[in-house]
Amino acid sequence: MNKKITIAIDAMGGDNSPNKTLNGVGIFLKENKNKKDFFLNLYGEKDKIQNELSNLKISSDQIKIIHTDAQVNDNETPLTAIKNSKNTSMWKCINSQLEGEADISLSAGNTGVLLVISKMILKMMNDVSKPALAGLWPNQKGMNVVLDLGANIECNEDNLVDFAEMGSALFKSIFVNEKPLVSLLNIGSEEIKGTETLKKAYKKLNELSNDNNFIFKGYIEGNKMMDGDSNVIVTDGFTGNIALKTAEGTAKFITDNLKKSLTQNLFTKFSLIFSYFSLKTFKEKLDPRKYNGAIFLGLNGPVVKSHGGIDALGFYHSIDLCYKIVKGDLIKQIKNNLNHLKK
Amino acid sequence: MNKKITIAIDAMGGDNSPNKTLNGVGIFLKENKNKKDFFLNLYGEKDKIQNELSNLKISSDQIKIIHTDAQVNDNETPLTAIKNSKNTSMWKCINSQLEGEADISLSAGNTGVLLVISKMILKMMNDVSKPALAGLWPNQKGMNVVLDLGANIECNEDNLVDFAEMGSALFKSIFVNEKPLVSLLNIGSEEIKGTETLKKAYKKLNELSNDNNFIFKGYIEGNKMMDGDSNVIVTDGFTGNIALKTAEGTAKFITDNLKKSLTQNLFTKFSLIFSYFSLKTFKEKLDPRKYNGAIFLGLNGPVVKSHGGIDALGFYHSIDLCYKIVKGDLIKQIKNNLNHLKK
Repeated sequence: MNKKITIAIDAMGGDNSPNKTLNGVGIFLKENKNKKDFFLNLYGEKDKIQNELSNLKISSDQIKIIHTDAQVNDNETPLTAIKNSKNTSMWKCINSQLEGEADISLSAGNTGVLLVISKMILKMMNDVSKPALAGLWPNQKGMNVVLDLGANIECNEDNLVDFAEMGSALFKSIFVNEKPLVSLLNIGSEEIKGTETLKKAYKKLNELSNDNNFIFKGYIEGNKMMDGDSNVIVTDGFTGNIALKTAEGTAKFITDNLKKSLTQNLFTKFSLIFSYFSLKTFKEKLDPRKYNGAIFLGLNGPVVKSHGGIDALGFYHSIDLCYKIVKGDLIKQIKNNLNHLKK
Repeated sequence: MNKKITIAIDAMGGDNSPNKTLNGVGIFLKENKNKKDFFLNLYGEKDKIQNELSNLKISSDQIKIIHTDAQVNDNETPLTAIKNSKNTSMWKCINSQLEGEADISLSAGNTGVLLVISKMILKMMNDVSKPALAGLWPNQKGMNVVLDLGANIECNEDNLVDFAEMGSALFKSIFVNEKPLVSLLNIGSEEIKGTETLKKAYKKLNELSNDNNFIFKGYIEGNKMMDGDSNVIVTDGFTGNIALKTAEGTAKFITDNLKKSLTQNLFTKFSLIFSYFSLKTFKEKLDPRKYNGAIFLGLNGPVVKSHGGIDALGFYHSIDLCYKIVKGDLIKQIKNNLNHLKK
């Protein structure tokens, strides 16, 4: 496929933007300086963006600025935003997919508003029962896709089956040479454990397993998610959100305590010099910025949400994720996977 | 209160028992050699226990062995165990509370069986809607009580309110000088977030807050559980189990990777010598053995479940937890807290 990839970027969303977003754009351009198969369309206040770009010494014929007057406020609720946000960088950035001007949209702005206006503008795919928010998690062998992370607090078995198909499509679009191994998050690995909804979803996924889309590995417990024996973890949005945030909190707690121990007195500070390189490798491997970007699945176009508080390097990883998703033809993969359910 | 504390211990439950359990008993006796206010009753095969005790050079007039012929198998299901387990060390250990011979029971054996036979023997307290499994988590300021960790996969608002009262009672019995600060685990901190059940529980807990039992702090997200601003975290058993195991898995993933980085080559191994002491402090603070022991609440007597795979030091911490719980008069605290709901 030699088609050009166009990524629509909300340059104004998130903390410290457009500095953060444009810095991220700069890193992406630098890392991909030999690739000519992409364009980055930047939505936001033209003057501000132009100033910032020249401050950062970023110039490229692969970027384009599209001026917008307003931006979505952090305090805006989804309800008020529908009325107020038509002229915002976020709205225009998503809307550009509808007009065929972009293949994917990326924003670090207000999550609730992003989900609602994405659904309004791009509409749900015909065969999807509910859209879902998917994220990437590190595991011992590489990366997991986990979904839903909070788009739907209650889900039935058909929603969970859709999530499995969409999550597998996402996994295949990012990791083209790997087979999706799907598991259902539960409180035990035996077939008799869990809610009625999970038992019904288990049965359906078992019947769909081993086809071209994915292999179903059964239930998985929270402590096994990072082992790498499954790479697509399916759950409802309530449980997924709790699991994701608990993992974040635990990781932060441990690394904060590690830092404290390593700097508590002169001797430990001195020893830090010697363990600098080993700790650097450790830190790089687990850097949360590498996993930045939740993907909103089930709409007629893909939308990626970057963490609002992430820095430029984190935002760069979101742009990179957008590039991979379009390159891997996510939407076609999802349509193909969902088609299979109709048999 | 000068009453003696009697802890009934299933010496046969869990991996590597009775060696592990008796080794744990040995540590407890050593750590509390000046205290004369407790007795440890050991249930299991008398000969095996006696041999092991003399091998370990443990002797004390504060321990007593009660012979039992059988033990609960790891593969036993709760259903078959009711029929088969009447002569087991686990059954007799719990039953001794009914006969006034012990104040609390401790086992590292089969969890499902322990929950079912505990409920059968000790029966639920009059005013409790559902019993719950509570655990201890580290936080930046000390420790949290978290419940339910898996006894009930579905809960209504009254169950959650009971859990708040019982969890507060547990917290007060262990940490006598601290005030229970209760939070409900949810996917956002705003009042409008979450399921209908959570919203109803929020309202009820808000009305009960600021009395003598606890202060209600509202919703808490997964990433804030370890900040230490709440110390009693309430959730249903499905969500609690997922959160607990996700935290365990994340902690293991991070420490495994830290170890790998620190030992990957000669230079990093060398540097390890210098960071040995700082890493030791870190490891000690986060040692999961310190938090070993889930407390089954809502029955007419307290039952503590030790992790089956934990070592002797972990088992010692469970015995210590039992001692603190009885010393802090848990059952009286729970009755008092639940009474308050009847007003």
